[in-house]
Amino acid sequence: MASQQTRRTFLHGLSAAALGVCAGIDLRGQSPAPRVDARRLRQRIETLSTFGRPAGGSFADGVSRVAYSDADVEGRRFVMAEMNAAGLEPRTDPAGNIFARRQGTAPQLPPILFGSHIDSVPDGGNFDGDLGSLGALGTLEALAAAGVRTRHPLELVIWAHEEGFAFGRGLACSRIAAGLITGADMDAVWNGMKRGDAIRKIGGDPDRIFDARRPKGSHHCYLELHIEQGGTLERAGIPVGVVEGIVAIDRYEAVITGVANHAGTTPIAERHDAMLAAAHLTVAVRDAVTRRPGRQVGTVGQIEITPNSPNVIPGLARVSIELRDLSPSKIDAMMGDIRARAREIAATTGTTIAFSQAMTAAPAAATPEVQGAIERAAGSLALATSRLPSGAGHDAQNMALLGPMGMIFVPSVGGISHSPKELTHWDDCARGADVLLRTVLEMDRL
Amino acid sequence: MASQQTRRTFLHGLSAAALGVCAGIDLRGQSPAPRVDARRLRQRIETLSTFGRPAGGSFADGVSRVAYSDADVEGRRFVMAEMNAAGLEPRTDPAGNIFARRQGTAPQLPPILFGSHIDSVPDGGNFDGDLGSLGALGTLEALAAAGVRTRHPLELVIWAHEEGFAFGRGLACSRIAAGLITGADMDAVWNGMKRGDAIRKIGGDPDRIFDARRPKGSHHCYLELHIEQGGTLERAGIPVGVVEGIVAIDRYEAVITGVANHAGTTPIAERHDAMLAAAHLTVAVRDAVTRRPGRQVGTVGQIEITPNSPNVIPGLARVSIELRDLSPSKIDAMMGDIRARAREIAATTGTTIAFSQAMTAAPAAATPEVQGAIERAAGSLALATSRLPSGAGHDAQNMALLGPMGMIFVPSVGGISHSPKELTHWDDCARGADVLLRTVLEMDRL
Repeated sequence: MASQQTRRTFLHGLSAAALGVCAGIDLRGQSPAPRVDARRLRQRIETLSTFGRPAGGSFADGVSRVAYSDADVEGRRFVMAEMNAAGLEPRTDPAGNIFARRQGTAPQLPPILFGSHIDSVPDGGNFDGDLGSLGALGTLEALAAAGVRTRHPLELVIWAHEEGFAFGRGLACSRIAAGLITGADMDAVWNGMKRGDAIRKIGGDPDRIFDARRPKGSHHCYLELHIEQGGTLERAGIPVGVVEGIVAIDRYEAVITGVANHAGTTPIAERHDAMLAAAHLTVAVRDAVTRRPGRQVGTVGQIEITPNSPNVIPGLARVSIELRDLSPSKIDAMMGDIRARAREIAATTGTTIAFSQAMTAAPAAATPEVQGAIERAAGSLALATSRLPSGAGHDAQNMALLGPMGMIFVPSVGGISHSPKELTHWDDCARGADVLLRTVLEMDRL
Repeated sequence: MASQQTRRTFLHGLSAAALGVCAGIDLRGQSPAPRVDARRLRQRIETLSTFGRPAGGSFADGVSRVAYSDADVEGRRFVMAEMNAAGLEPRTDPAGNIFARRQGTAPQLPPILFGSHIDSVPDGGNFDGDLGSLGALGTLEALAAAGVRTRHPLELVIWAHEEGFAFGRGLACSRIAAGLITGADMDAVWNGMKRGDAIRKIGGDPDRIFDARRPKGSHHCYLELHIEQGGTLERAGIPVGVVEGIVAIDRYEAVITGVANHAGTTPIAERHDAMLAAAHLTVAVRDAVTRRPGRQVGTVGQIEITPNSPNVIPGLARVSIELRDLSPSKIDAMMGDIRARAREIAATTGTTIAFSQAMTAAPAAATPEVQGAIERAAGSLALATSRLPSGAGHDAQNMALLGPMGMIFVPSVGGISHSPKELTHWDDCARGADVLLRTVLEMDRL
C-alpha cells in the first residue's frame, strides 16, 4: 500500500512535460495538442443511434441494439466503415470482437488497448458503450491528424455482447478474450439461436473460439472511456471520474414453487402462492441491502410467474436477485440474510424457494498507475477529477485479469442509464474523449 | 328472511313421497327410481377428455379445450353425437350454446333448464364443466329409460365460452342468453380471430346474436351440477354441496410507474423501483383480505414488469388484483384498504400507482326453494349436504338474472381445479348426477 502510494506520487511528478517529449509533441507550447474532433464524435454517436432506434422515433427515444440482433450487425458494419474511412483496417476475432491497430515507433512493445462496446440493453440509451467506442476511434484519428506517433502500438477494440442480454453477462466476449469461457459455452441457446451461430452472425468463428484468448501481458494497459451511469459526478459538478475499481456482482435465480389453483375457490389458508412469496422475497432483498451502511446495491429486476393469469393463484415464480459491492464478503453477508429470510417466507407461504447462482463477477481494482495517468491527463486539460467505484460491470474488469487497467467516467445527466433517457452532454463527451487521448499518451510514456 | 325460512321448511315437509307421485313413479316402493348410468357417465368424461389432451398424454394429463379452439369444436361434436344417440335433437343457438329438449306432459309450462359447459382453461382438468354437462345428459337418458315423464319440459344446455379464456369472462355465452352483451362485443379480437368468426366456428350466427337472448321467466329454474373446485366438501367428508350463491368478483389492474435505471450505478436512495412497489402491493392485497373475518379471497395472479432484466431497476409494473366475496360492500372495503396502502407504497418507493377496474361481476344468490329441493333430493339418496358459497363464477350466475337458480357441488380432491390434477372420484360424480336428476324431479313438482 505504502509503496504504491510512493510510486503514484513519483509518476505524478513526471507530469505532462515529460509526456509531451515522449509522444513527440510539446504540450507546453508551440504545436497545438491533438484534440478529438467533437463534432464528428457527436455525428457518429447520432448515426450509430439509428441502428436499433424504435420505428418512427428520434435520438431521444433511445436504442434497442441487443447483441446478435440485426441492429447490432448493422451498427457494427457502420463502425467498421468509419474505421476504414479513418484509414484503419478493422478485423474481427473469432469471438466477434472488433480490433483496429495503429503501429507504434517501437513495434516490439505491447499495445495500449482501449475501446468499449456498441451493443445495448433493450430500450437502452445512446451513450453506454457508444461514447467509449467512438471516443477511441476519435483518439486514433486525432493522433493521426496531428502526426503523433506513440512508442507503443495502439489497439482500438469494440467488444461484442457486453450487456450480456442475449446469453448472459457471463458470456460477454471480453471474457472469451480473458480466457474465461469454455467450449461448452458455445452450446448456450437464446431466442432459438445457438451461441455459436450468434457468434458466426457477427463475423466470428466459434470453431476457433480459443484463438480469441489474449495472453497475460499481451497489452501494455487497457483503457476505457464510459459514462458514469450513476449521478455522482453530475451532482458534484465534476467532469471526470477516475474509477477506483469495478464492483463484484453476484446474480441468483430464485425458483419459488407453490401450487397453482383457482383464485376463487381456494381459501386463503390453503394457498401456496408463489407470487406472494416472490413479493416477500423482493422486500427481503431490499431489507438485506439497506440494513448495513455503505454503497452496496441489490435489485430484483426480473420476474416470471406461472400461469400468470388474474384468476389463478401462481404456482411458480422465478425471480432474479442481483447484489453488487466492491467487497465480495459484504455481498455474501447480504445473500446470507436473504437465504435466511427465504426460509421463513417459504414456511409461512407454504412454498419452497431454491436459489441457483446465475452469474458471479469478481471485483476488479483499477491499477493505481493508470488512475494517476488519467488524473494527469485531466489536469493537463484543467479538468477536475474525482475517484469513485463503478457500480456497473464493464469489459475492463475482464481486461484487468490480463494487465493494468483504468477507466475514465463522464457525467450522466440525472444518473439515468439503460434507458432512452440516458444522456451525457456533448461537451462532457468531448472532454472525456480528450482525457482518453491524453491518458493514452501518458501511458505511452511509462 | 322469516318467510323464506317458513317456505323452505314447508317444501321440505313435502319430501320425496309427494315427488314420487308427481313424477309418475313411486320412490317409496316397487318400481326402481331412475338413476344416472355411472359407467356411461365415466366413459363419456374419459372420451371427452381426449379432445384437447396434450400429445402423448393420458387422462391424468388434463386438457386444453379453450373455447373456439379446434379441440372445442371436436368436443362439441362428440357431445352432440352422444345427444343424438340418446334420442335427443341438439340445436345450436346464435351464440353457440347447445340446447336439447325433452317434452313434458304440460308443454305450456316453462322448461327446467340444466347443464354446464365443456370448454376449459389452458392446462385445465377433466371435471370442471364436463361433469355437469354429461351428468345432465345422463339425467335425461335415465328419465327416458325409466319412462318418467315430467310435467315441465326439460332442457339440457351446454354453454359456450364459459371459462372466458378467449375473449374474457365478460363475453361468456350465457351472458348473451341473459341479454348482457351488445352488438359491439362481436368485434372483440383474440388470437387474430374476431369474436363473430369465433361464434361462427362453433355453429353460431353473430348476425342474429340477439335472438340468443332468453326472456325473464322463460324457464322454470336453472340447475347446474359442478365440482366444488375448493376443498371444503372433501375435508368435511360431505358428498353434496348446496350452493348459497356465487360470489361477487372485482378485478383491477394496478399500473405502477417508477424509473427504469441501471441496477449497479443507481444508489438505493435514488431508486424509483416499480417491482419493489409491486411487491409491497401484493403483500398489501393479502393483508387487506386477512385483516377481516370471513371467507373472502384476494389474489395477485398476474404481473408484467418492464424491462424485466436482472440488471435494470424495473420502471413499470402491471399487477392484477382480484377480490371475491358474497358481499360487494366487503369487497369495496378491502379495495379501500388496498388503495390507502398503495398511496403509502407510492410515497415510500417514489412511484405512482394507478388503478383501473378490469372486470366486475355481481353476486348471484341461489334461490332458497331450489336449495331446499337439492337438499331433499340428496336426502332421498341418504346423502349428507352442506351449504356453501361458490368462490368461482359459473353460467348459473347469469341464469340467476332470468329466474330461480341452484347449483349442486361435488367434492374436488385436494381442492384443486383449473389444473390437470383436478379430480373428483367417480363415485362422487355419480352421486352428483343422481342428485341433479332428483332435483329436476323435485323442481318439477313445484
